[in-house]
Amino acid sequence: MDVDIGTIGSPTHSVVDIHTHMYPPAYVQLLESRNSIPLIRKFAGAKEPRLIILPAEAESLDKMTGSPETSHLPGRPVTTHYSSLKQKLHFMDTHKIDISVISLANPWLDFVAPEDAGETAKSINQEFSNMCAEAPGRLFFFATLPLTAPPETLLAAVGHVRSLKSCRGVILGTSGLGRGLDDPALVPVLRALAANRLTVFLHPHYGLPSEVWGPRATEEYGHVLPLALGFPMETTIAVARMYLAGVFDQVPDLRMLLAHSGGTLPFLAGRIESCVVHDGHLVREGKVGAGRRTVWQVLREQVYLDAVVYSEVGLKAAVDASGADRLMFGTDHPFFPPLGGDEQGEWESVTWNAEAVRKALGDGTDGARAVMGGNAVEVLRLREDS
Amino acid sequence: MDVDIGTIGSPTHSVVDIHTHMYPPAYVQLLESRNSIPLIRKFAGAKEPRLIILPAEAESLDKMTGSPETSHLPGRPVTTHYSSLKQKLHFMDTHKIDISVISLANPWLDFVAPEDAGETAKSINQEFSNMCAEAPGRLFFFATLPLTAPPETLLAAVGHVRSLKSCRGVILGTSGLGRGLDDPALVPVLRALAANRLTVFLHPHYGLPSEVWGPRATEEYGHVLPLALGFPMETTIAVARMYLAGVFDQVPDLRMLLAHSGGTLPFLAGRIESCVVHDGHLVREGKVGAGRRTVWQVLREQVYLDAVVYSEVGLKAAVDASGADRLMFGTDHPFFPPLGGDEQGEWESVTWNAEAVRKALGDGTDGARAVMGGNAVEVLRLREDS
Repeated sequence: MDVDIGTIGSPTHSVVDIHTHMYPPAYVQLLESRNSIPLIRKFAGAKEPRLIILPAEAESLDKMTGSPETSHLPGRPVTTHYSSLKQKLHFMDTHKIDISVISLANPWLDFVAPEDAGETAKSINQEFSNMCAEAPGRLFFFATLPLTAPPETLLAAVGHVRSLKSCRGVILGTSGLGRGLDDPALVPVLRALAANRLTVFLHPHYGLPSEVWGPRATEEYGHVLPLALGFPMETTIAVARMYLAGVFDQVPDLRMLLAHSGGTLPFLAGRIESCVVHDGHLVREGKVGAGRRTVWQVLREQVYLDAVVYSEVGLKAAVDASGADRLMFGTDHPFFPPLGGDEQGEWESVTWNAEAVRKALGDGTDGARAVMGGNAVEVLRLREDS
Repeated sequence: MDVDIGTIGSPTHSVVDIHTHMYPPAYVQLLESRNSIPLIRKFAGAKEPRLIILPAEAESLDKMTGSPETSHLPGRPVTTHYSSLKQKLHFMDTHKIDISVISLANPWLDFVAPEDAGETAKSINQEFSNMCAEAPGRLFFFATLPLTAPPETLLAAVGHVRSLKSCRGVILGTSGLGRGLDDPALVPVLRALAANRLTVFLHPHYGLPSEVWGPRATEEYGHVLPLALGFPMETTIAVARMYLAGVFDQVPDLRMLLAHSGGTLPFLAGRIESCVVHDGHLVREGKVGAGRRTVWQVLREQVYLDAVVYSEVGLKAAVDASGADRLMFGTDHPFFPPLGGDEQGEWESVTWNAEAVRKALGDGTDGARAVMGGNAVEVLRLREDS
């Protein structure tokens, strides 16, 4: 391969992938039982079932009649990369990844009925825990919370995941309890997570309202706009709303890991700061006085960023904003599979992110070593048993 | 002042502000005659009329009864900074800006009835031309197109603005002819602009649908989210749509200057590239083959970025993406006025952007000189008479 990922940090230090997803078998069954997105659907003639999570994909599903050409099926194939632990370990070996912190992929359990959410979360998290036990020391996980469940069920779930040996945090979408992450009702949950030293991996799913992509997007631009722009913009908006609501003040020990290098937060932090201090309403409310926590402080002291940004330019900005001690390598596996189609081989998407670390921080430097694994080992306690 | 803007480039070279707006008197009258946004409204007890352009501001206007406290009026005051040429020149002198390329502020003429647009544009552009003639060599302008007018009127307007001595381009919002900048019907207009060596200054106005800011935004967060995030995200989406539609291939000599350092494009370019080459639809359509124009090529060869990003982190990313020879200093005057309230003094928003250039590129370096004015002088032909 072009890049020997194992040596970018150091041959004697672990490479850790903190952004790597799975849909374990129980979750696949759950999605197969559904009639609206998210769902998994089998098609005659297609080798693998298809995962359909975007509204635009659901639209093309509704329009389908007869037996469509298999090259024009909506969504993406649910390969064994999504559900097979053996496949995950093979992928890790191929790319010299020592440790993976696996998480359920979006949309998690956001769609589950309140009365089912608690039990569903428990079984999914137990399944993740069991998978990790099959490769001790190599696999850890971010659990999934039953966000639609009643408050007591939700808080009990925090206790449950904390008791699972390989759990190091939770993956969280931007809807929270349904009203976003700036919802005051979510603060007790975030406090419970912080008190249990569970890192919150903030991950997008909902994107932006499809009207912003314009009339040509669905037919002509594939999934590029919602994935390339909608996802990182959603993350940025969610964190900015938390910031303006004072969540980072209210839960100062919250540890939050932001997907895709913070969406666009490193690039926009300066503009956010300028808009805050110039805002007539915030000034009148006394919210921009001395001692105010700035967006830069949140970036440098409270959040961590993954290194899934696919460019040296982006990675440098993330490092400039948060420091090399707050960035963590990730792959986003099993999304963005190899361009040539050989899913057992090397994944370019992985290589590009590793190359960005090498170019931005240098080969074998302390910074590269920290980003490729050192930070994750320390922050997520990957040398500790539980 | 903290930063002597005049010396960041070089004391012997011009400082040029390419992002600086005006609402000339005829435009103010137009807005005063309106009952829906955008509009200008006078309030009893308030010294200055108020400019109301955001949907959230219109909502609070609708809710108002009786005589509101003047500290809680919607929108922002239309100070003389918006309409007075004398004030613009004073602002330039205060900040050691030698040349300004002024433009009508949003929302331009996007709201004007088709039958009026041609004449309104002509009179507004003539007014800008007259203003520039009052300070020859110090003022140039980006004209405004009558985008709602019939095609022949619109193309005639390109010829008209080209004939105005100090005109160096046009300012353009993201709605284009109403269907976005990826609308094929806009291509002839962009070709006419390119053929006339008129630079297109792409500027946001519409932001994102207000639902993305969540239920607390209107009451609690002031204008921060739509201005800090909505504006740059809108720009990014518009350029990405143009890119995916092939506009940069169809109009290769288009010169486009992107507001706010490209919105978030430098940070997201790597992700856009990855999503493009991994997209099943684009692959099937043969759109990702050899010779494809990449987003990086658009950034490095076709667009220019202003330096209005309020941080060293952002400015460095913009320079890394496009090169110091494609960045141009700007102020966004008369928005973001001085925090202390003395509008005749120094504007912090200006200083922050100048400081970012100095920190990112060094004091008195070739790069700083280019960004602070050299690039604008060359690209916009500011030493030429017309």
